[in-house]
Amino acid sequence: MSLVVVGSVAYDGVETPHGKVDRMLGGACTYISLAASFFTKVKIVAVVGDDFAQDDYDLLASRGIDLEGLERAPGKTFFWAGVYSADMNDRTTLQTDLNVFADFNPKLPVSYRTAPYLLLGNIQPALQRTVRAQMNGVRFAGGDTMNFWIRDYRDELLDTIREWDFLLINDGEARMLAGDYNLRRAAEKILDMGPHTLVIKRGEHGAILFQGGEHFMVPGFLLEDVFDPTGAGDCFAGGFAGYLAERGIDPGHRGIDHRELRRAVIYGSVMGSFCCEKFGVDRFRNLTRSDIDARYREFKAFTDF
Amino acid sequence: MSLVVVGSVAYDGVETPHGKVDRMLGGACTYISLAASFFTKVKIVAVVGDDFAQDDYDLLASRGIDLEGLERAPGKTFFWAGVYSADMNDRTTLQTDLNVFADFNPKLPVSYRTAPYLLLGNIQPALQRTVRAQMNGVRFAGGDTMNFWIRDYRDELLDTIREWDFLLINDGEARMLAGDYNLRRAAEKILDMGPHTLVIKRGEHGAILFQGGEHFMVPGFLLEDVFDPTGAGDCFAGGFAGYLAERGIDPGHRGIDHRELRRAVIYGSVMGSFCCEKFGVDRFRNLTRSDIDARYREFKAFTDF
Repeated sequence: MSLVVVGSVAYDGVETPHGKVDRMLGGACTYISLAASFFTKVKIVAVVGDDFAQDDYDLLASRGIDLEGLERAPGKTFFWAGVYSADMNDRTTLQTDLNVFADFNPKLPVSYRTAPYLLLGNIQPALQRTVRAQMNGVRFAGGDTMNFWIRDYRDELLDTIREWDFLLINDGEARMLAGDYNLRRAAEKILDMGPHTLVIKRGEHGAILFQGGEHFMVPGFLLEDVFDPTGAGDCFAGGFAGYLAERGIDPGHRGIDHRELRRAVIYGSVMGSFCCEKFGVDRFRNLTRSDIDARYREFKAFTDF
Repeated sequence: MSLVVVGSVAYDGVETPHGKVDRMLGGACTYISLAASFFTKVKIVAVVGDDFAQDDYDLLASRGIDLEGLERAPGKTFFWAGVYSADMNDRTTLQTDLNVFADFNPKLPVSYRTAPYLLLGNIQPALQRTVRAQMNGVRFAGGDTMNFWIRDYRDELLDTIREWDFLLINDGEARMLAGDYNLRRAAEKILDMGPHTLVIKRGEHGAILFQGGEHFMVPGFLLEDVFDPTGAGDCFAGGFAGYLAERGIDPGHRGIDHRELRRAVIYGSVMGSFCCEKFGVDRFRNLTRSDIDARYREFKAFTDF
């Protein structure tokens, strides 16, 4: 079943201990939609400038992604540049040029509005809310956010996530949102804010799913080399929501199949791990569903007892 | 089958965000042996001063621990004091008085020398080596070490662990010992140093077992409250080696049952998690094997997919 993805399509400049790329395709919407496209039909809503390259457009199209909602506006595409620390656990932003993204006001094409799945990348909470409001009969809607919105747009953010089925967030953001350092208690507080399903992403340390009074933990995949962690959290989100959409799981009202949610968390972890193996989106150029399923089985093998 | 444990028996002063205790029973040998005593017969080798309290002696005896190798020397017992950061991921040592521990020269009682299992707590590598040399026909021997020995006693440490079957070490120490930040590559380098079994402890993020070309990962137990993390790594070691000794698993020459090793890692994680729930060794005063097995089943429940 189809999944609508909303967020940034950007150009990124990234430097890690493994090398430097001055300008390459990036942005949350890009990573999410590429990852999800291995599971289900994806329809994106985003804006790019008139500098957006045909090659990049073609890459998204080659993955079967519906680009009707990809607006081209006069001006330049969103640009971000950053440099990672030696251990790649920290990064410093060097440059952020919002460009055409500054006026992004997502409008869903009519053909998107009845899609059953919605994944909102990290954008301003009020915009996320207007997208949710344009959908008719969405069955599983949610998304991501970040420290900036939690700190400075708290009320708007709370109004937005109150209507969500799921929230994907990293551990530091979960602690900040809940005002509690302990993740177990933080999760309880966040689940009282609206979403019935919460995934806390912990980078190299894996992820935790909270839903229906249970939790599920998965360690992070032990990569031999981490080339570029940019987009890994977004690819996690794409794998997670993409798998649920592929299976057509109808969460109904607070009645999600917990086993399928666990599998979705593993597929999210799988896609996040692939993302780190090459710069930018390069790992997805030749990735196959069979590679993905093989890594899913690896997760089973190294966690089973 | 019996397990010989060698290391410090100490008094600790600990301050965490949950409170402060000026003086309580502690030390690696204490934590290891208490944790292991829920699984198997433990025989300890350690030294205490003439201030060592009868109550503390009685606690160890009540767990069936063989105290023939607990030497009483004139002077004071090893004392350590430290304070934890607000998130309890860092601690600062405030005081270290080696006292009688400064001249610790472990001598194994004759009745210990044929025990099949040996776990060496974190002490000077040359001393660990003399203990290993006193054993006859030990089947599974290994232990722990720390950054100080890795940095300043590297050759001695390498001579010591060359003779070990297993090494338990935390992630920062593994990186330092191997000279490689990546844990997967660091593990390969360490396995070339002697031990055929390596467990990398990651605190709240769980543990990784490397053995026979495979690895196994377990997330850390998600505690509602962490009162005092002191000794958690030692309790992990005690649960790990204690379980293997209980099962009487004969590793033979590089032929350990990988499934049982995985279970041992879970029991290690279980004992480490209990340790954090109260100050010092308090959680072990009323713990039962049935509590332990219930938490083992919880690990299964929150990791299975």
